[in-house]
Amino acid sequence: MGITNFRPLINRELLEKATQLTPKLIETEIRPQSLIKVHMGKTDWESSKISGVENINKKELRKGDSLCLDFGDHMVGYVSFDISSSVNLADAPAYLRLKFGESLCEIGEDSADYQGGLSSGWIQEEYIHIDCIPSRVELPRRYAFRYMELLVKDTSQAYSIKIDNIVCKAVSSADMRLVEKLKTDDEFLKQIDKVSLKTMHDCMQEVFEDGPKRDRRLWIGDLRLQALTNYETFKNYDLAKRCIYLFASLLLNEGKVVACLYVKPIATPGEVSLFDYSLFFISCLYDYYNATEDREFLEEMYPTALAQAEFASERIGEDGVVCDSDTWWCFLDWNDKLNKQAGAQAVFIYALKQLEVLAKTLRKDTKYINSLIKKLTEGAINKLWDEEKGFFTSGKDRQISWISQIWFVLAGVFETEKNIKLLERLEKVNPPVGMVTPYAYHHYIDALIQSGMLEEAKEKMCGYWGEMVKDGADCFYELYDPNDKKISPYGSRVINSYCHAWSGTPSYFIRKYFVK
Amino acid sequence: MGITNFRPLINRELLEKATQLTPKLIETEIRPQSLIKVHMGKTDWESSKISGVENINKKELRKGDSLCLDFGDHMVGYVSFDISSSVNLADAPAYLRLKFGESLCEIGEDSADYQGGLSSGWIQEEYIHIDCIPSRVELPRRYAFRYMELLVKDTSQAYSIKIDNIVCKAVSSADMRLVEKLKTDDEFLKQIDKVSLKTMHDCMQEVFEDGPKRDRRLWIGDLRLQALTNYETFKNYDLAKRCIYLFASLLLNEGKVVACLYVKPIATPGEVSLFDYSLFFISCLYDYYNATEDREFLEEMYPTALAQAEFASERIGEDGVVCDSDTWWCFLDWNDKLNKQAGAQAVFIYALKQLEVLAKTLRKDTKYINSLIKKLTEGAINKLWDEEKGFFTSGKDRQISWISQIWFVLAGVFETEKNIKLLERLEKVNPPVGMVTPYAYHHYIDALIQSGMLEEAKEKMCGYWGEMVKDGADCFYELYDPNDKKISPYGSRVINSYCHAWSGTPSYFIRKYFVK
Repeated sequence: MGITNFRPLINRELLEKATQLTPKLIETEIRPQSLIKVHMGKTDWESSKISGVENINKKELRKGDSLCLDFGDHMVGYVSFDISSSVNLADAPAYLRLKFGESLCEIGEDSADYQGGLSSGWIQEEYIHIDCIPSRVELPRRYAFRYMELLVKDTSQAYSIKIDNIVCKAVSSADMRLVEKLKTDDEFLKQIDKVSLKTMHDCMQEVFEDGPKRDRRLWIGDLRLQALTNYETFKNYDLAKRCIYLFASLLLNEGKVVACLYVKPIATPGEVSLFDYSLFFISCLYDYYNATEDREFLEEMYPTALAQAEFASERIGEDGVVCDSDTWWCFLDWNDKLNKQAGAQAVFIYALKQLEVLAKTLRKDTKYINSLIKKLTEGAINKLWDEEKGFFTSGKDRQISWISQIWFVLAGVFETEKNIKLLERLEKVNPPVGMVTPYAYHHYIDALIQSGMLEEAKEKMCGYWGEMVKDGADCFYELYDPNDKKISPYGSRVINSYCHAWSGTPSYFIRKYFVK
Repeated sequence: MGITNFRPLINRELLEKATQLTPKLIETEIRPQSLIKVHMGKTDWESSKISGVENINKKELRKGDSLCLDFGDHMVGYVSFDISSSVNLADAPAYLRLKFGESLCEIGEDSADYQGGLSSGWIQEEYIHIDCIPSRVELPRRYAFRYMELLVKDTSQAYSIKIDNIVCKAVSSADMRLVEKLKTDDEFLKQIDKVSLKTMHDCMQEVFEDGPKRDRRLWIGDLRLQALTNYETFKNYDLAKRCIYLFASLLLNEGKVVACLYVKPIATPGEVSLFDYSLFFISCLYDYYNATEDREFLEEMYPTALAQAEFASERIGEDGVVCDSDTWWCFLDWNDKLNKQAGAQAVFIYALKQLEVLAKTLRKDTKYINSLIKKLTEGAINKLWDEEKGFFTSGKDRQISWISQIWFVLAGVFETEKNIKLLERLEKVNPPVGMVTPYAYHHYIDALIQSGMLEEAKEKMCGYWGEMVKDGADCFYELYDPNDKKISPYGSRVINSYCHAWSGTPSYFIRKYFVK
């Protein structure tokens, strides 16, 4: 798997159905709350409030002057403002630099210092000329941000500028008014739920985006968790249906579901398929059917779901174990040290059990599916389970990681009693190959819940996501390690996504399991 | 005079007439001619051709790569191009830097080094993000350029970009097809005429702009020379009429004509009036009437013309001489050392003599005008003329400059015979306060012609403007000193205007006087 010879297989009929479901975005005008100063504190960038924004339009800005604005919350949208000049008309174009940041570090750091692995094109910084003054400046690009800095690179000796009516036209396909009020007095839980909803809201655009700052794209790993949360909150079933249609219509090569896809400028599959991500097409369909009982859609999508199991089965060896590889063939978590074999095996069993339910719903024959489940379960127990250590191992070095155990719990290879013991042992032994992303943490919480350990699940959830809330998160971050808060797999955290879909699942847990 | 307390006096009725005359711009698609390399030669920036542009769309451009294109001629317009990626879709925004230059120095120099006096906002350099790839990029701003450089600041590790179909939609309100073919075999004269026409063409937009790169504005000093040339070439009488209407409708304070005005974003007078420039409203009207015999318009504009003489008369002292000042009260030329008193006196007489003709045409009483001419002429001869030295002097230090003599020739204070001697003496003595701009040179050539010295005029014209042609000028420059070709009054020549209205008058001389 991994990077393939790109040969897209596009189903125009399904793509048209996806297009018909394109949501109309809800637009909301949001204005800055305060004028702030961003400075380096003892350990990190900090902000201090200078004033409200009532008198911003009185400030005369000359070359080198700047304004830093706090909009008070994260948002995704289009910024516009009025620019005028101190004299009647400006005798030269104004030249401005604009920075937009989800986090203070994006404002504080100098983009010229960026040496990260991802494109610096993601840095939300613009240099613009304004020829007509006074005028209204409407920035054409969409930004994901809470903070906005405007620096005057130049005006002329004859004039200074004034800025007024700064507005962000925030966009989302999620309607916050449709979300039920949370019936609890637990203020901390309410806070976590609020940040989770905001994360979901800002990622819900014309598709479920993974992150509205970066990559602004539909990844199926993110979609699965977003859709689950959506069914408990915004209930935008059409958006989920549209995204499943997109994955079913934009296939790769012989018919594999891709890891991610692009809607703009033209709908196209990404160039990579991943073992676990392709199988999650089954999960997405399973969850959607559970939420909607839309049998017609299930009928339409079932062949694509079944095909993913068939493709994945090609990887099963004689010993009933999924073949390992050194390439980027399976995701599971952002952890370079993680061996993926065991997790992949468990995800496969997990998805097949969902496929079996769907097959039964449609009164299809389940013999093939059952035989795969049996083969993979036996393979896992015979080859990956280490009875002595009490853990599933992965790869030729028999690595013991957190996520391997978690996924085997979710796959239901053992009975509940044995799973509880496995999860307790996991916490006690604490193997060094841990979890890195909220995406992995989601599956840990889910595994605890599926094993009936609701109190532990709630405690772990509040410990991890709650720590982000205590750190002042407006939305949940793509990456979060409470022990290393500046972590980035990209070489610089200015490129991290601070509002990320796969981190927005606390509302799912809270509303489905913790507050009934 | 100089900078005033700004109190515009706007005549909405006349402004509406000006608006009705707004020309529809002619659009022409122009494509680059060759791929070049810009490098520092022995004394200045040079370019060498790398190839044609046939295979530009095959070049894969990664971070740090660039393309430098030569469009083969100067133009004013809007640039667009196709961008595509080496892979199926780009996984991050492309980040590009674009430079547009009328001259090679604008491509070669690093804009970060600019320390000049005018706003760096005039430097034609953009940083742009492209979110959708493939797509067509349409740059919203207008550029004046021949050279375009595209530098890839970043793509991502996954893709390189390709650029194709680079087009400039060139705009002008001048129609080159309307210009009569020049009836001469003198190839050099033809070349000078061609560059002159191109200069005019590129400055003729919705108004006669002074320079399409900078200031892109209607200055009355430039307008007067542009209109004169236009009457001999493009014959766009409506554009001249529109510009005169604009000056008559956007007055300053009690009714003074301003030195320059803005059409966008809203029609507004500039904040400065200059002694000579206000008087040139009379000249503009005089020249327009001579070209069109539009008597109705003359009737309508006459009161504004007369008012300019009245305002100027307030400056006449008891001795019949215009009062001098250390402020920026009169233009004449871009020469800091120049004392303006004598030139101002001469311009006043020059304009009054035109006003007298207009008054007579309208059968108005000319007593007031005649008395002013008499007073100023006597003042000039009694107070400014130095019989011993044979020159007009200016200011308390009795400065002898080229431009003072030239304007007194044009004012016709002496008979032709004495003017010829004055001009011959001027060349022989060569006083150190010389001419700096083609604008000043224009008046020198005109003075020679008005004194019947056609051969000398042609020789001087070919010597000055012809030298620019030999230097490879596509258009005539705002500033040109054959002895110091990197001259700039702004602290850096990258901000100079290399296509400037007041330098485009050779076609006027050639077509009116040299080739009949």
